[in-house]
Amino acid sequence: MDSIPPDHPRYQSLLLRDRIVSGIQKGITSQHGLVAHGRGEAFDYLLSEKTLPSANIAAKAAAAQLFLSKKPVISINGNTAALVPSEIISLSNLTKSKMEVNLFHRTDSRIHAIISHLNSFGATDVLGIFPDANLPEISHDRAKVTSEGLYSSDTVLVPLEDGDRVKSFNKMGKTTIVIDLNPLSRSSQSATIPIIDNVHRAIPNIIRHFEIISLLPPENSIHILENFSRNESLSEAEKKIRLGTF
Amino acid sequence: MDSIPPDHPRYQSLLLRDRIVSGIQKGITSQHGLVAHGRGEAFDYLLSEKTLPSANIAAKAAAAQLFLSKKPVISINGNTAALVPSEIISLSNLTKSKMEVNLFHRTDSRIHAIISHLNSFGATDVLGIFPDANLPEISHDRAKVTSEGLYSSDTVLVPLEDGDRVKSFNKMGKTTIVIDLNPLSRSSQSATIPIIDNVHRAIPNIIRHFEIISLLPPENSIHILENFSRNESLSEAEKKIRLGTF
Repeated sequence: MDSIPPDHPRYQSLLLRDRIVSGIQKGITSQHGLVAHGRGEAFDYLLSEKTLPSANIAAKAAAAQLFLSKKPVISINGNTAALVPSEIISLSNLTKSKMEVNLFHRTDSRIHAIISHLNSFGATDVLGIFPDANLPEISHDRAKVTSEGLYSSDTVLVPLEDGDRVKSFNKMGKTTIVIDLNPLSRSSQSATIPIIDNVHRAIPNIIRHFEIISLLPPENSIHILENFSRNESLSEAEKKIRLGTF
Repeated sequence: MDSIPPDHPRYQSLLLRDRIVSGIQKGITSQHGLVAHGRGEAFDYLLSEKTLPSANIAAKAAAAQLFLSKKPVISINGNTAALVPSEIISLSNLTKSKMEVNLFHRTDSRIHAIISHLNSFGATDVLGIFPDANLPEISHDRAKVTSEGLYSSDTVLVPLEDGDRVKSFNKMGKTTIVIDLNPLSRSSQSATIPIIDNVHRAIPNIIRHFEIISLLPPENSIHILENFSRNESLSEAEKKIRLGTF
């Protein structure tokens, strides 16, 4: 791992890039993931590398949704595991969400590497090694899920996910929370709750909202969700990207 | 090296990506460089992969600046060496600019690999192996430069450069010419002459302008520089990226 000078003004962004690169050596990210991360960096620049007010509202809605869910599951891919391992584990513990590794380019060795990476950050019981169910209308190995995890969940948090699977989760009647820097992606466009933000800012933000929301009665969360507008979340981000203002 | 079909509509872009990937095998580019290139690809898409009129004006100003300079130096990193080795060498010969390798993630083996790559394209006397000076206000190995090259230069052409070093060059009183696809980057925002374009289009463009300018009296170049607006160069590119128009 290269050392990044902590006084560099873009230290945080360079650190995230470094985590994706280190992930390749560990077998948890792929070179495809590197390219996807570069694209994300471009969108984050256009968002001024800051959480928009609308992304903060979406993170609050996500926290409310997780609070009301009976069986929330966090879907984890290589980039998510490399970028925000401790944040994802904290969110999982706090919200009592299961974690399941779910890969586009699925290989057993990557699944194992990702799980052992998460375990090294304190995770236990990460699902995904023994898939026994398939998502409907998805061809290919990327349909494989576990019946106790993603398949039977009521809410799925899918950071950095493939659009097809988000659509498939929706068709199964699940609520989908997507974190993506591109408001025009199929994932963002399909999500029940799209959060247009960097996972590195969005996950701690959901945690912060959840800590408050979980002390309040469920009616509060129901109210938050009734007032949430996914179109506003998408269009404010698109406006910021296109106009530089919102 | 993968073979790219020359009739592919995005042949040029795929060829450049291939050069960065091949550069990793040669030890001249890094996986961090791949991510940076991915980010650049996203911005180039938004620029329609074409040179804007404002980028052409900036390239002309760069040519005028190089013509008037007493000691111009071209700063070269791994991505520049991989993407446009012959173009950089031609520009160096034509403008009598020294070349100096200057890396963010500096290792001796990468410096050597980059210089031998440039030598294989006909370069001689590429500086950077024996740095004997430091840029002010920069921590870390990336401050290292040579006193006969970057340190004592009056104009620095810094394609694909780190923003901190551009600022440091400015503080030393040097004129900085930056080539970057992101008009919002700290490098672009700090440059005396920001060229928001792909290096693959910008360098040949500077060469073309220099060939004409160098036949004319210096007053012509002074006039070009007096009329150059860096703000216009940045804002036209940002408008094109955000709004798709200019």
